Amino acid sequence: MGELIRKRIDQLRQLMKKKGIDAYYVSGTDPHQSEDVPQHWQARRFITGFTGSLGMVAITAKAAALWTDSRYFLQAPGELEGSGVQLMKLRVEGTPAPDEWLRSQLPHGGIVATDTTCLSISQFRNFKIALKRKRLELKNSGDLLAPIWIDREPIPLSPVFEHELKYAGLNRSEKIDLVRREVGNSGADATLITALDDVAWTFNLRGNDVVCNPVFIAYGLLSDVTACLYINPLKLPAPLSKKLNKEGILVKPYEAIFDDLPHLRGKVLIDPDRTSQALAEALPHGVGIIEQVSVPAMLKAVKSEQELRNIRETMRIDGVAMVEFLYWLDQAIGGQAISDCDIAQQLEVVRSHREGYQGPAFPPIVGYQQTGAVVHRRVTPENAVPVERKGILLIDTGGHYLSGTTDITRTIALSEPTPQQKEDFTIVLKGMINLTTARFPAGTRGCNLDILARKALWDRGLNYGHGTSHGIGYFLNVHEGPMSIRQEYNDHPLRPGMVLSNEPGIYREGQYGVRTENMMVCVGREKTAYGQFYGFETLTLCPIDRRLIERNLFSPGETDWINRYHQWCYHQLAPLLQEGKRSFLKSLTAET
Amino acid sequence: MGELIRKRIDQLRQLMKKKGIDAYYVSGTDPHQSEDVPQHWQARRFITGFTGSLGMVAITAKAAALWTDSRYFLQAPGELEGSGVQLMKLRVEGTPAPDEWLRSQLPHGGIVATDTTCLSISQFRNFKIALKRKRLELKNSGDLLAPIWIDREPIPLSPVFEHELKYAGLNRSEKIDLVRREVGNSGADATLITALDDVAWTFNLRGNDVVCNPVFIAYGLLSDVTACLYINPLKLPAPLSKKLNKEGILVKPYEAIFDDLPHLRGKVLIDPDRTSQALAEALPHGVGIIEQVSVPAMLKAVKSEQELRNIRETMRIDGVAMVEFLYWLDQAIGGQAISDCDIAQQLEVVRSHREGYQGPAFPPIVGYQQTGAVVHRRVTPENAVPVERKGILLIDTGGHYLSGTTDITRTIALSEPTPQQKEDFTIVLKGMINLTTARFPAGTRGCNLDILARKALWDRGLNYGHGTSHGIGYFLNVHEGPMSIRQEYNDHPLRPGMVLSNEPGIYREGQYGVRTENMMVCVGREKTAYGQFYGFETLTLCPIDRRLIERNLFSPGETDWINRYHQWCYHQLAPLLQEGKRSFLKSLTAET
Repeated sequence: MGELIRKRIDQLRQLMKKKGIDAYYVSGTDPHQSEDVPQHWQARRFITGFTGSLGMVAITAKAAALWTDSRYFLQAPGELEGSGVQLMKLRVEGTPAPDEWLRSQLPHGGIVATDTTCLSISQFRNFKIALKRKRLELKNSGDLLAPIWIDREPIPLSPVFEHELKYAGLNRSEKIDLVRREVGNSGADATLITALDDVAWTFNLRGNDVVCNPVFIAYGLLSDVTACLYINPLKLPAPLSKKLNKEGILVKPYEAIFDDLPHLRGKVLIDPDRTSQALAEALPHGVGIIEQVSVPAMLKAVKSEQELRNIRETMRIDGVAMVEFLYWLDQAIGGQAISDCDIAQQLEVVRSHREGYQGPAFPPIVGYQQTGAVVHRRVTPENAVPVERKGILLIDTGGHYLSGTTDITRTIALSEPTPQQKEDFTIVLKGMINLTTARFPAGTRGCNLDILARKALWDRGLNYGHGTSHGIGYFLNVHEGPMSIRQEYNDHPLRPGMVLSNEPGIYREGQYGVRTENMMVCVGREKTAYGQFYGFETLTLCPIDRRLIERNLFSPGETDWINRYHQWCYHQLAPLLQEGKRSFLKSLTAET
Repeated sequence: MGELIRKRIDQLRQLMKKKGIDAYYVSGTDPHQSEDVPQHWQARRFITGFTGSLGMVAITAKAAALWTDSRYFLQAPGELEGSGVQLMKLRVEGTPAPDEWLRSQLPHGGIVATDTTCLSISQFRNFKIALKRKRLELKNSGDLLAPIWIDREPIPLSPVFEHELKYAGLNRSEKIDLVRREVGNSGADATLITALDDVAWTFNLRGNDVVCNPVFIAYGLLSDVTACLYINPLKLPAPLSKKLNKEGILVKPYEAIFDDLPHLRGKVLIDPDRTSQALAEALPHGVGIIEQVSVPAMLKAVKSEQELRNIRETMRIDGVAMVEFLYWLDQAIGGQAISDCDIAQQLEVVRSHREGYQGPAFPPIVGYQQTGAVVHRRVTPENAVPVERKGILLIDTGGHYLSGTTDITRTIALSEPTPQQKEDFTIVLKGMINLTTARFPAGTRGCNLDILARKALWDRGLNYGHGTSHGIGYFLNVHEGPMSIRQEYNDHPLRPGMVLSNEPGIYREGQYGVRTENMMVCVGREKTAYGQFYGFETLTLCPIDRRLIERNLFSPGETDWINRYHQWCYHQLAPLLQEGKRSFLKSLTAET
């Protein structure tokens, strides 16, 4: 592999030389700034051999470097071996940022080029400023890899389908009107819709172009009077195409957006974090630009009453699947020989029988003993580990249903847990409960609340290296913005209707991992002289392993919470279960 | 007053017309971006009559507007009456921002002018961008008020004095070397020191140019080899002047900074939030600019071991003064007729007898019953209120000592408190204790911790409208950056050695206010596999009114905390008190 990469880099360098470019920069995203990127746009992997999900690449005439984070510090060196690409460890003291590294490699006035279709306006702007301070120039070179990328995967062509009204809650024209109203309120005449989940939500359409994300490659452009969908027409089944037409949606080829933008007039609202610099460059000089978070992103983050009703029903469906899985596990463990991969498959089996199931919301995470401490380990048949009747099992999975997307983590004791395991589990659970029961005034942001999930850990010198909570799409991406609950600042306050995960954890390297995750929805609480208060309501219906709870670490309020939660789970799920599984659920939800 | 203001505005408009300016903008700060502004620079007051401490002004040929916040919504209309200046309520829905208002008033391409000596680089930059989006231009017009401001106060001329080594801990050349090292680490060759407290700290000098802030009007400019102090030489007593000279400090006239900047070479580090746009404009084109938080601001926020030793001693001194005050209050109340103003004066009296006392750290806040609910009420003989043996008294005062600055709030019951008063007091105290006892990993920011002080309030639908914690200078400004603990994001993590206030409160409009404030220092705690943890140590030594504590609302840990705190107060202060006051302290610190 190393030699192949060297050859590709050499070819790129010849092109760079021909074009007078001193360095080529690869941001590693796609034209829609997706978190999960279709193979067609996996330029980082093509030019370095690195398969991780995050990283930037810079290549000069003499050197090449890849920046990635601690998740990949073990994996990256092997993949980069022999390629001549140097690993740069992000957030490690002494690692130069790309702009610093480029300054050390290039002469004054050196030219850095990039493909602006795969860089957001903000990324391009910030990188340009950083380079300018170092007396380097950032330019658009187009895609320099295209000519040398022989066996490149095409842009995905999977068919698009309709998200029916009974699930979507609002029809297409109602959603488009909602977007138009907000665009108008911002003083704009039109808006570009670039993020794939924003396009899917706005047009009540879904697809299968990105693994585990029910989205499809397309752009949208809405003005006061027109609604355009830019998409490869091969992706639209004829009846759907006809229907869109009848509803006044103009369907144009995917690339045609670059032909239409130069003719825009008035003011256009664009999201600088989700719109490529290439699109910005296609706008005419005279057009007014209002930079703001994408309107569909703001609208879809707040679930409607109908969506919430559907999500609550989906939670019952997914909860039944989870109880069936737990029942299977209880029988299987210690009997037949099973692996973590079998467990992942069984979870898929129990979900796939449920109404409206469309597929996994993300690659399943099954962490057994020490692999549970590897936060983002993905299970494959090749790396499968046998699971016995001992130790701790961490399972983080979720499903896409037509009526909502689920995301749940449970940690299960396969034998009598140790005192430390019980303490860790209980502390994590205290954190989860503490965040769930929060009351907070309107305007509160995620970084203000995050400590509620961590305090019990911090008090004991423990912590976890990931965020506490992400937004969750409605039969859409399992990671959905714009809000989040984590230490890092996020400008978007929490608002009633937002659906979020709640997932603190503890990871004991070489031993085990503990994480408990429920989904919850932000809801309105009392209004007092001191403001409007909000809180959360739990959505997820699935027992939490009582054998791992150390009662002495619980406050009376926490004990009360877990008992009420289990009663609620039993009452919601029991009527949907057969007798044997019902009495199994009864034992799982007994009083703590 | 209204008529006088109208006349001034007319004169300004004539000047604007002559210079082709469509609007004049007054930011309301001084050339050093001070929080408290010397009268010489109180341009907002001069041109509108408004005496509040926050506000921006915009004046066009036909209209004039003042933006200020809710603290002044009652006061401003009276002061603006007859002036023709319109009140714009900040953070009230529907209020246009200055750039929006200006767009509605001016033609396309209209010119907005301002005095760039009184606007920071960031303020100027952001305002320019906002106006540009509205197709308006922002320009530097110099100070247009100067020609019409007849009876303007001169720039203060109070003498500067040395902050002696035994207090400062490091001598001037050591501090200058520290600054130089950090400037070098940033890749810069020189730095401009513009904030008054930064200048004072760097040169171990103090002054009296700003009410309650021991600073003096000056700039500093440090390069690898030179150290310049730009100051009116009349402010330097001859021996000090000589000494500075001997130590190689170049003393130049205050205004000479504008002559020297054009000759700078290499790279200069400037703080865009604390440096005026006028200074930035004086820099030559060829100079490299590194924008970063001021190095002295970062250095002085982390107190040295010696400073911390001195602060702890200062806490004993101030604690004795507070106990003496409480003793006086206990005797005086209900006996002689006293007012809140007498109370403020008595606090000044008890402090002024203590070693090293230099004056109040800020105008004293004495809130009795309903005036306690007015967060920033200042006491004057004119608005004095009689204080009787009933209700609740809130006292927020502090002192500058040569060995440190103090800031303390205590709430005192003057008769048997009501259940609601006790509940409010106890909830606020829970918040203060909860923040005090926090453990948190390195990198934690103020917005992550703020909720610890508010959670007990939020759980009951209560809140307070101010920050929880500000940094405190060392015989310097009582509000000191760069860190803070509040809901709003602040990029600067907490670090060991930082000294902060901790001051949650509850304000019942028309009834009373409750606030308890201790000073604390961030300290290192254990280092675990999950990172380096920090915590806080309390600095303030003064009993907390036990009569207001509702024990049933306390956890065992909280009861334990208050008892250990009171024991510590007694052991630290008792040896410094005479017998009568000592037994008084004993009763105040008895077990809860």
